[in-house]
Amino acid sequence: MQNILAFDAGGTSTRAVILDRLGSCLGYGRGGSGNPVSSGFTVALASLRGALEGAAAQLGTASGGYSSAVIAMAGSSVHTSADLLSGELAALGLRGSLVIEADLLATFFSGTFHVQGYALVAGTGAVGARIKDGRLDAVADGMGWLLGDAGSGFWIGHHVVRAVTAAVDGRGPRTLLTAALMDALGIDPGLAAIIQGRPVAAQQMVDALYDLRPVELARFAPLAFEAAQNKSAPDPVAREILEGAARALSGTLGAVIDPSTRGPVVFGGSILSRDSPLASSVERSLPGPALEGAGVIRVADGVVGAAVLALRHAGVTVDAAVYSRIGNTLAALRGP
Amino acid sequence: MQNILAFDAGGTSTRAVILDRLGSCLGYGRGGSGNPVSSGFTVALASLRGALEGAAAQLGTASGGYSSAVIAMAGSSVHTSADLLSGELAALGLRGSLVIEADLLATFFSGTFHVQGYALVAGTGAVGARIKDGRLDAVADGMGWLLGDAGSGFWIGHHVVRAVTAAVDGRGPRTLLTAALMDALGIDPGLAAIIQGRPVAAQQMVDALYDLRPVELARFAPLAFEAAQNKSAPDPVAREILEGAARALSGTLGAVIDPSTRGPVVFGGSILSRDSPLASSVERSLPGPALEGAGVIRVADGVVGAAVLALRHAGVTVDAAVYSRIGNTLAALRGP
Repeated sequence: MQNILAFDAGGTSTRAVILDRLGSCLGYGRGGSGNPVSSGFTVALASLRGALEGAAAQLGTASGGYSSAVIAMAGSSVHTSADLLSGELAALGLRGSLVIEADLLATFFSGTFHVQGYALVAGTGAVGARIKDGRLDAVADGMGWLLGDAGSGFWIGHHVVRAVTAAVDGRGPRTLLTAALMDALGIDPGLAAIIQGRPVAAQQMVDALYDLRPVELARFAPLAFEAAQNKSAPDPVAREILEGAARALSGTLGAVIDPSTRGPVVFGGSILSRDSPLASSVERSLPGPALEGAGVIRVADGVVGAAVLALRHAGVTVDAAVYSRIGNTLAALRGP
Repeated sequence: MQNILAFDAGGTSTRAVILDRLGSCLGYGRGGSGNPVSSGFTVALASLRGALEGAAAQLGTASGGYSSAVIAMAGSSVHTSADLLSGELAALGLRGSLVIEADLLATFFSGTFHVQGYALVAGTGAVGARIKDGRLDAVADGMGWLLGDAGSGFWIGHHVVRAVTAAVDGRGPRTLLTAALMDALGIDPGLAAIIQGRPVAAQQMVDALYDLRPVELARFAPLAFEAAQNKSAPDPVAREILEGAARALSGTLGAVIDPSTRGPVVFGGSILSRDSPLASSVERSLPGPALEGAGVIRVADGVVGAAVLALRHAGVTVDAAVYSRIGNTLAALRGP
């Protein structure tokens, strides 16, 4: 029987897994950015191919082709790329259909095999979803850096730089974030000369930040976590930013919670997948019934969920046994 | 004696005035965007040329060239363009030096001939300044749409669209702004079909907004003013946005106020130049001593100030008599 392909295609990296219909993962590989919207079609395709080649190499034997494939990627990519990618994957051994699924759903199924519950993802962006019958039933936020993504890595980084620009010209309180940001940008904060009424260091900072693509401000989110946990004096500005992010993420999750839909809550994305006061605060804001007493499940990526979605599309029922087989065999392939 | 040239070069339109050393304005003309940073050098130059041709045509006689020129433009353009523009203006009759001045200073001198005081400009962007000895002594904000411009037209428009995206997926309160924004974008709000957990109308709105350049969100600022003044039910979300803008602008002005510097306060830019609750609120926030009991002066553009700066650079002392001559002769040229 032919094997099945699953991809978890993210903006930073892509994961591919080859599995059989019992849920045993046989090969696992990684590639670069697999998002055609943010990185372009050529790069995304190269990443998918690279990840698949890694997985096929691990499998070792000639696979005889794949009967079907699922690619999980960011929601905005879902409508645009299926036909194009399908042709390209045929050349790599795909004999059957390709389905593109929302990465949100892959995140959810990376935490549970249940077909209803909630997912909240906060990485560079932020989005919440209610899942019912294994499908996205309602989505909140995920509106992108300019219009939404409240509480995301971009949102936090953006608030960091705005807090610093306000601090340097006296509109906002002093903050540890100023020195941290200057340091991150390689600017000498001692440049106190004033040109056109503004300190040179401040102008250099503004110029350096506008040289970035806006979404790259997400890279400054860690400065808020560090300043908020500063041992000698936790920074109140950084703490306020993170509290704001927690409120925003709680609001996003709250917007999709429906008391009649009970199930696990899965947290994903770099801002929520680790244990942090921010993640705990969002977790505490959850109404009890939604959790079913199960607590929140944190996942690092969506590759297990992509495998679940691939099995479901191949007509396989993913029960507790299959689900734990996916997790165990994949963990063995990925190594420590 | 040769005449003097003054330009008020804005992102939307450019004004040129030809004046003599007594402050009598002899010709006035208008052109398109004169900002080389936002519109490119070629467009900016064409706008300056067009405005000057209009002014020269009004003057009527051959002018015999201009002894000096000042161009007032946004601060970020000040360092980059003087040499390039100087050569181009020589071909248009400039015999002497060209000086580029900050538009902030032109706004200030459009309201007063005093050489110290304060200016607060809120158009697409927002910036405050303390003026001393006729120069910019301190500047706050003016950091651009991504990093600052708190309370500006962009800021208000950005908050409008974020309030609407939050309202449509239940993260934020319902608001009149939703229907107003959908209408402005030509989207049928009745598109209630759900795709990938999201209403089609909401997705169309997001797509339409990302098709704009971010700074174009400033065009939605008027929706907040309209919704906040809705006759049957003033919209609380819109009012909160405008109150936030007023607080931000008060903070920007407050950051440059120094009790030892007393003088007039000049408001400029589309958000502040008209009489509105927002402008009144910012005015009320001013500490009394800064005002010298003179109240706030509102100006529509910076052309009078550009003329003042041009005279000052030509060595002319601009006193009350010269200042009122500039204003009166320019008003006569501009017509009703």
